[in-house]
Amino acid sequence: MYSFANDYSEGAHPKVLELMERSNFQQNLGYGKDIHCERARDYIRKAIDDKGAEVHFIPGGTMANLIVISAFLRPHEAVISADTGHIFTHETGAIEATGHKIITVAGKDGKLTPEAIRWGLRRNAFEHTPKPRMVYISNSTELGTVYTKEELTAISQLCQEENLIFFLDGARLGSALMSKKSDLSLKDIAQLTDVFYIGGTKNGAYLGEALVITREDLKEDFRYLIKQRGALLAKGFLMGMQFEALFEDDLYFQLAKDANDKAERIVDILKAHRVEFFVEPASNQLFPILPNDFLEKFSKEFLYVKFDDIEDDKSLIRLVTSWATTDESIDALGEFFHKHYNYK
Amino acid sequence: MYSFANDYSEGAHPKVLELMERSNFQQNLGYGKDIHCERARDYIRKAIDDKGAEVHFIPGGTMANLIVISAFLRPHEAVISADTGHIFTHETGAIEATGHKIITVAGKDGKLTPEAIRWGLRRNAFEHTPKPRMVYISNSTELGTVYTKEELTAISQLCQEENLIFFLDGARLGSALMSKKSDLSLKDIAQLTDVFYIGGTKNGAYLGEALVITREDLKEDFRYLIKQRGALLAKGFLMGMQFEALFEDDLYFQLAKDANDKAERIVDILKAHRVEFFVEPASNQLFPILPNDFLEKFSKEFLYVKFDDIEDDKSLIRLVTSWATTDESIDALGEFFHKHYNYK
Amino acid sequence: MYSFANDYSEGAHPKVLELMERSNFQQNLGYGKDIHCERARDYIRKAIDDKGAEVHFIPGGTMANLIVISAFLRPHEAVISADTGHIFTHETGAIEATGHKIITVAGKDGKLTPEAIRWGLRRNAFEHTPKPRMVYISNSTELGTVYTKEELTAISQLCQEENLIFFLDGARLGSALMSKKSDLSLKDIAQLTDVFYIGGTKNGAYLGEALVITREDLKEDFRYLIKQRGALLAKGFLMGMQFEALFEDDLYFQLAKDANDKAERIVDILKAHRVEFFVEPASNQLFPILPNDFLEKFSKEFLYVKFDDIEDDKSLIRLVTSWATTDESIDALGEFFHKHYNYK
Amino acid sequence: MYSFANDYSEGAHPKVLELMERSNFQQNLGYGKDIHCERARDYIRKAIDDKGAEVHFIPGGTMANLIVISAFLRPHEAVISADTGHIFTHETGAIEATGHKIITVAGKDGKLTPEAIRWGLRRNAFEHTPKPRMVYISNSTELGTVYTKEELTAISQLCQEENLIFFLDGARLGSALMSKKSDLSLKDIAQLTDVFYIGGTKNGAYLGEALVITREDLKEDFRYLIKQRGALLAKGFLMGMQFEALFEDDLYFQLAKDANDKAERIVDILKAHRVEFFVEPASNQLFPILPNDFLEKFSKEFLYVKFDDIEDDKSLIRLVTSWATTDESIDALGEFFHKHYNYK
Repeated sequence: MYSFANDYSEGAHPKVLELMERSNFQQNLGYGKDIHCERARDYIRKAIDDKGAEVHFIPGGTMANLIVISAFLRPHEAVISADTGHIFTHETGAIEATGHKIITVAGKDGKLTPEAIRWGLRRNAFEHTPKPRMVYISNSTELGTVYTKEELTAISQLCQEENLIFFLDGARLGSALMSKKSDLSLKDIAQLTDVFYIGGTKNGAYLGEALVITREDLKEDFRYLIKQRGALLAKGFLMGMQFEALFEDDLYFQLAKDANDKAERIVDILKAHRVEFFVEPASNQLFPILPNDFLEKFSKEFLYVKFDDIEDDKSLIRLVTSWATTDESIDALGEFFHKHYNYK
Repeated sequence: MYSFANDYSEGAHPKVLELMERSNFQQNLGYGKDIHCERARDYIRKAIDDKGAEVHFIPGGTMANLIVISAFLRPHEAVISADTGHIFTHETGAIEATGHKIITVAGKDGKLTPEAIRWGLRRNAFEHTPKPRMVYISNSTELGTVYTKEELTAISQLCQEENLIFFLDGARLGSALMSKKSDLSLKDIAQLTDVFYIGGTKNGAYLGEALVITREDLKEDFRYLIKQRGALLAKGFLMGMQFEALFEDDLYFQLAKDANDKAERIVDILKAHRVEFFVEPASNQLFPILPNDFLEKFSKEFLYVKFDDIEDDKSLIRLVTSWATTDESIDALGEFFHKHYNYK
Repeated sequence: MYSFANDYSEGAHPKVLELMERSNFQQNLGYGKDIHCERARDYIRKAIDDKGAEVHFIPGGTMANLIVISAFLRPHEAVISADTGHIFTHETGAIEATGHKIITVAGKDGKLTPEAIRWGLRRNAFEHTPKPRMVYISNSTELGTVYTKEELTAISQLCQEENLIFFLDGARLGSALMSKKSDLSLKDIAQLTDVFYIGGTKNGAYLGEALVITREDLKEDFRYLIKQRGALLAKGFLMGMQFEALFEDDLYFQLAKDANDKAERIVDILKAHRVEFFVEPASNQLFPILPNDFLEKFSKEFLYVKFDDIEDDKSLIRLVTSWATTDESIDALGEFFHKHYNYK
Repeated sequence: MYSFANDYSEGAHPKVLELMERSNFQQNLGYGKDIHCERARDYIRKAIDDKGAEVHFIPGGTMANLIVISAFLRPHEAVISADTGHIFTHETGAIEATGHKIITVAGKDGKLTPEAIRWGLRRNAFEHTPKPRMVYISNSTELGTVYTKEELTAISQLCQEENLIFFLDGARLGSALMSKKSDLSLKDIAQLTDVFYIGGTKNGAYLGEALVITREDLKEDFRYLIKQRGALLAKGFLMGMQFEALFEDDLYFQLAKDANDKAERIVDILKAHRVEFFVEPASNQLFPILPNDFLEKFSKEFLYVKFDDIEDDKSLIRLVTSWATTDESIDALGEFFHKHYNYK
């Protein structure tokens, strides 16, 4: 049984583990003030060419989302998200638990558009509705799609015009940036958003998201907010070490490229069998539509996540690759399709 | 420069790292449903002799505290704590941020007493005050003191009589249980409280607190609450592996004993120099009172935490040991006192 | 200029004012423990034939909604509402501000259906979504429609089967019950729901909603929760007096009937001019669709609320009547339509 | 039985009721945008000589406190209060329910001092404690004491130096300003604080506190915050009318003076019997210490509130007067002491 269910099934990349082991008996300052965190911060600041950027390491994505959103909004302010946004669909009401409404608008293949944001602004424009004050997007999105520079720039400009804070959830930012459909660099992300994070958990680390705040007036007191939500780990250096290993050279991007390449191999296999995709594949998350009787067999050898029913006899499923996905598993998947997939 | 500032300066115990490395490419289910978490849960259930206990792994102590307290209280209910309680003094208002007041009562060397709890109940007994519904203690306490079985039993009984949930913060539970002043076992803790946790971060792990819920009516839906606060790590197996390594034999307790033994060596050195302690040492946290001019020199070779001013010319400081504290560092500390400490 | 914009433009019914004046120098206990509140509670308990019902007086509807919802839900639990529900559309995120997500499902003319609720349950059935635990409806709805006994019974049964708390917002309950389309009594409401309120503000009182809790396990400590949200007025007797005056005979229902009768007169006028309604009128809120050029003239003599654009040249507006609406104003409206409305 | 238990036992001053009656059938805009609120706002702005001040009417004191405090603080920020402060002792955790910790410091006869505030700042000066950002005082205090101009100015200056928002709870501001011990005017209050309120409930109105925001950067969006907490009454004009009646001439201050004068008569009676006071009387709340056996008889004819035990045989009680307190009741109290009080 091989799992394509997600990109967080295995441990950390060997280079990460190696650094952890090598530094194990070194004494470090607590709460992220150690030398590894500092080095990792410097690598990231250099990568985005912004010496003044604040970089904080947060154990997980939901935690990063809830800290950021509640840190910057007053009680009556709300965040606009696509209706497929992770904060709206998969976080057990974590944002609302901090007191803030998520205003959902129609996404387009999981992506937000200026038009949708403007619709949300019009619908929430008087004092008996919350006041929209932030825009949340994820890149890659929950449907595996990625933003182009033009798309991101358009949202960025709208945010400036409308005094909205622009927040990008980069739990899978590596895969997004290494997508063949992306023309964005990490530096672009930093320049076009006010705050974003670089996901480690799903791209080589055990845990950790590197949160980057570029907008000046959002920087104040952020460590208080991390601490208050319980996310300021005593051994913060654990996250520092991981990002140090991932960013001292371009390992982070190589791993993401690996994941995408493997996803592409799967796409090739499925397309050769004329399998339909719910959205055109762009990164390491794939959303094929497959017949239920095929899936019954498939599920005996491969793990995946079912997303939805499509008509009576098909399902929308998600297959995910990562840096740790083996070539053998993809070979096996290819053979399985060859042997068992006979449709249309 | 050697640090006695805390017990979270180094990485994980080598056996923990070894298991992480050995299991690195194994595929695991996400969010704590993996085989390592299951094994760790079984070890802990066995250690407390309670097959039905719920065991959850939470990345950090503040997070564990805020999840537990907000999970079990209705909005108007409050938690009673000693005025030295970590939730009151060192968590940036994390509990209040979930909407609940902490009712503080006078502690005795950092410990709660039935009398103090009763005083808190009397002072908060009508509908214009919050309703006390939970008692929070830490063991060992923030002053390094430990509860005896008699003391813990008395609080436990009062909680039952007064319909109070009894919650024990065990961030340093290992050191408490291995204290020469303690006659409590892990099983006693489980039987006398409703919910408690076994701290990993400060006793051999990188991160992780094993939260144990023994009271039946508190078990429902707890994973929802972990997820909502952002504490349900995708790679939850990282915490599972660590507790597996710590609890498959008695490593957890050995490490705690090591830390205590090292603390005792320091106590012996300081007492030989007739240094006064703020509270009688009992575990791995020591609170000596030292002259400021001595500390000026001391601080050039050793890291510690200053707690308070004592009169004009002395300070209350904290020295902490852990499983990773080296014998050499204690030798050096001994020599330093021998050379520089000439008081009274 | 006459206002049909809402049902809260005038003061209180003269009988209410009379009682306030007559009792003005009498001394009362504070915080709703006075004799007027007690009498009003008794009248209401008698009207619903439930001696054990808890009755609390809350200054306003949003306050009642946020207190009820946050009082009964654990942090991870959510409330299901129609997408037109007042709590979702008109309360500035008041519910989310207490930490709870509102799960919206498609309403049918503003009403919830068992099918829609079931859809909401299916979409929120695992631990990465909030757990649905309450159903919120309003009667009359935000579109002026009213529930039948059959409809309400179906929802009530579903709530019991699925362990959902059934909460009815009755800000306009008088008008709903006196609707010709309603076969429900106040007693039915009390029996079919777990908690509901009887709106005073929009039906004869200055302010005040009489919140009724019939379900036993929801009664505990409710006054604490009112106090904590700031809604336990020192001079609670002001609300007691008003409900005493409204419920000592059937004044409350007479006023609601008056409001409905006046609405019906307006409906007759508009239908005579073949004006189309967005939903079929049933209570004191009317939703006609009118041409923009007509509205331009109309707005110079009458106040109303615009709800939405309909195509390019029409608007959906809301006209509301109350016990205080004068016959003269309706005559004037009739004349205005006679003179100015020439469409289709 | 006559009640000296509080200053909210009776209805509204006749001039208030008169205006309510006279305006009863007039149509008003909703939510505080009506002409009465506007007039009341103008009267208050004139009284404090600040044309740009924002004035909002809030139904009650706890509500005003929780809205103000949560409106202006970021999640990690806290408010400093005397340990006798109403927000800490009598509001069922209302402030904590909005997510903020109250940092209590030692009061002096119920009053805050710059020294106490500075102590609070020192104790909360690093990122593992909440960040003090607001100072809360009440005038008159919960012990009936009042601030002098010098005292208030000292706190005001400290707040400016330390970047703290200065908030004054004026639930009993009338009585404070009319105290013989006060040299402050309403205008002084407005100039020395950033935000304060003028209590109506306890001085002539049925309900309502006039919240005044003078500091520019605190004004934005405040109506959203009132609405979100459920405090934006549909018939906001009810509060407008009351403050209009109280402030169109100096009725508000006359009523407060009446209350103080009556309190003084009681003080004279008690002092003539050499009754000891817990704090020297200054406004309409009195805190005598009386023997328990006397109180047993007293309680059969007069209502009061017991505050605390004093030794074994005495109690600290509170007696309160208001504009509605009758001379006859004070005569009766005088006779009662004459007949029954024979101590020392």
